[in-house]
Amino acid sequence: MPSALPSPWTLIPGGITSPAGFRAAGITAGLKVSGNPDLSLLLAPEGAVCAGTFTTSLVRAACVDLCAERLRARGGRARAVLTNSGQANACTGERGLADSLTATAALAARLGLEPDDVLICSTGVIGVPIPMPTLLAGFEPLTAALAADQAAGDAAARAILTTDLVDKQIALEADLGGRRVRIGGMAKGSGMIHPAMGPPQATMLGYLSCDAGVAADLWQAMVSRAVDRSFNAITVDGDTSTNDTFLAFAAGEPLGHEHLEALEACLTAVSQHLARAIARDGEGATCLIEVQVEGAASDADARVIARTVCGSSLVKCAVHGRDPNWGRIVAAAGRAGVPITPGAVALWLGPHQLMAAGQPLAFDRPAATQYLRERAAAPYLQDDIVAFRLLVGNGRGSGLAWGCDLSEQYVRINADYTT
Amino acid sequence: MPSALPSPWTLIPGGITSPAGFRAAGITAGLKVSGNPDLSLLLAPEGAVCAGTFTTSLVRAACVDLCAERLRARGGRARAVLTNSGQANACTGERGLADSLTATAALAARLGLEPDDVLICSTGVIGVPIPMPTLLAGFEPLTAALAADQAAGDAAARAILTTDLVDKQIALEADLGGRRVRIGGMAKGSGMIHPAMGPPQATMLGYLSCDAGVAADLWQAMVSRAVDRSFNAITVDGDTSTNDTFLAFAAGEPLGHEHLEALEACLTAVSQHLARAIARDGEGATCLIEVQVEGAASDADARVIARTVCGSSLVKCAVHGRDPNWGRIVAAAGRAGVPITPGAVALWLGPHQLMAAGQPLAFDRPAATQYLRERAAAPYLQDDIVAFRLLVGNGRGSGLAWGCDLSEQYVRINADYTT
Repeated sequence: MPSALPSPWTLIPGGITSPAGFRAAGITAGLKVSGNPDLSLLLAPEGAVCAGTFTTSLVRAACVDLCAERLRARGGRARAVLTNSGQANACTGERGLADSLTATAALAARLGLEPDDVLICSTGVIGVPIPMPTLLAGFEPLTAALAADQAAGDAAARAILTTDLVDKQIALEADLGGRRVRIGGMAKGSGMIHPAMGPPQATMLGYLSCDAGVAADLWQAMVSRAVDRSFNAITVDGDTSTNDTFLAFAAGEPLGHEHLEALEACLTAVSQHLARAIARDGEGATCLIEVQVEGAASDADARVIARTVCGSSLVKCAVHGRDPNWGRIVAAAGRAGVPITPGAVALWLGPHQLMAAGQPLAFDRPAATQYLRERAAAPYLQDDIVAFRLLVGNGRGSGLAWGCDLSEQYVRINADYTT
Repeated sequence: MPSALPSPWTLIPGGITSPAGFRAAGITAGLKVSGNPDLSLLLAPEGAVCAGTFTTSLVRAACVDLCAERLRARGGRARAVLTNSGQANACTGERGLADSLTATAALAARLGLEPDDVLICSTGVIGVPIPMPTLLAGFEPLTAALAADQAAGDAAARAILTTDLVDKQIALEADLGGRRVRIGGMAKGSGMIHPAMGPPQATMLGYLSCDAGVAADLWQAMVSRAVDRSFNAITVDGDTSTNDTFLAFAAGEPLGHEHLEALEACLTAVSQHLARAIARDGEGATCLIEVQVEGAASDADARVIARTVCGSSLVKCAVHGRDPNWGRIVAAAGRAGVPITPGAVALWLGPHQLMAAGQPLAFDRPAATQYLRERAAAPYLQDDIVAFRLLVGNGRGSGLAWGCDLSEQYVRINADYTT
């Protein structure tokens, strides 16, 4: 749940299919050796405005290029997005693009759409092509499973996962000028998480649906701003993926301009919820770390500092060890590459102030340690947040970033992933 | 040992005291609870040209500022450097500077030097001041132990260590125009290692001595170039320290200009040896990772790519798991932030080529895995190198970086450092 739900929005059960005008499906096609669900489809039968943000990595999968190209060609509109999990189809050469084209063409034919109406996202092992006969054989049961209910949304949200422990969904609803508007979303991601997405360019994958219509260019701008404050503000391991993609669909009657601000607040809240859920589900993580930076020269600078602290291996290990080792936080802030005023630095861990004016305070170490322990002892919960607040100067810039602790389990998971 | 010793230099036993004109000492003053040696002194009794490079972190210890300031004030000359290990004396406010001033003044008086002749480096826990009475009481036995022999150099090299497993020393000798010239060095560092040092600005600490005289500005330029190709090209955990410092002393009769190129080659080789030794001694590491990048737009770009690959948690875990997961290497190169040509990427692991033209090759996986295993099975050795060679395009830029694998032991060490 978002830390603060923007007014007038309320949380409702559901996800990607909660807004009107969207159908979804998720099945097991057999792409994964594990036998877990691996094929997901989101469909806007009447069409939708679609804004995309994509990885800025120079080594990116052909499916990412294809999404960006089709959205550009169609002026920011799309009707469907297919997601296969198990194979990232990155570094697969010309075959990568050919397979993405074949898959979307075959799916479009089955859905009665143009190939350009269909987008594709892939996630899994890099360098491994998609087993195409298995993929194509999955289209019949996949399209047969399409539905607008929550069960279909749940299935779609599960089928995009790879090393994730839990699915990530949310839906919010508001009355805007007498009209019920809903935004739903789903996402996946657990490792290789340090999204750096630009406008019309994560292997985080995120999908959002909205049943209010917004002009394509306006929607893209709103989505890009929301992504900067959510997915681009999380880190699990500092590794930006070849396939990171966020696609936000808006379909329905146009919404009055007087409600766009409320809509963007919801868009940001939904994106932040999904981003935080990815950080919390970081490989081997036992808690979510939230760093709030204030007093920076700009909001962008504040986000850079906050994400640098979240990404520090030493900070992550200290949190894992339930050790209020504040020195590592300040050291990370100092190397973030943006201006800070060391003599003005103040730091809080939850309710405990650890530093003031650049120097350590005589804080209650057992209580601070207890604060950290309580958040780890809780069962898997998206609200088990270790919160740091860091004042870095007298500027007006503030920003948030999210990450997770670094555990021995992270090493075990990643020392033996392909073999 | 440097991978390729530059001509006409030969390796000799020894370290910081091998060049003529330098004396050193290392003792246990009681600054560390462990009872390990913790106070180190390097002295150039006749004075020396001294070039320094210091951390670019905005949060840096007062001792770093003091070193930079004194070198500037004295036109790049110094006579002694004191190193205390156990307390970083960073984030200690005004007391930090006052203690650094008191320490150097007291030591200068004992040595018959001006305070400005004496530099100070501190390493250990951030936010903890130096126990001054213990430090000051250590000066008598420290100065009494000063000697020019190898035992004194060994003692000095051991007293600068914190979480290091081994000391790091090297000495090279050459005949330059009929004159015997020696360069010696020592360093420490195991965690919070991702130096980013600028000219007249690393908790890696490195010290170098040379018994040939070079003009101060020329020496600083040579040292800065060597640091960019050595200490600034290693990473253990991506965390740049508040105290990183490299100090290079040159004392003796001026060396003819025709020999400066050979001298700089040695300076670079000594710095690279020490830097590699730090990376190999990275907290929890079981091997050294060396990444050689070729075909980049510039040497600087090549070093950025090489260091990004070395710093990738996923690459580090794959190496730890002895898993030739090449996709992670290419993904890291793609996000390095400098131009590469994905379609031209080729990759070798030792003698095994894993990729060509941006695509995976059908390589001998058991042999590649065996290559990785052999390098881990060896006992602690600075030559157990996992070597990657990465071609990223058709440019003329090439560069090297060094790192280490990420183990469960790294997490255990850092989850419980202050408590």
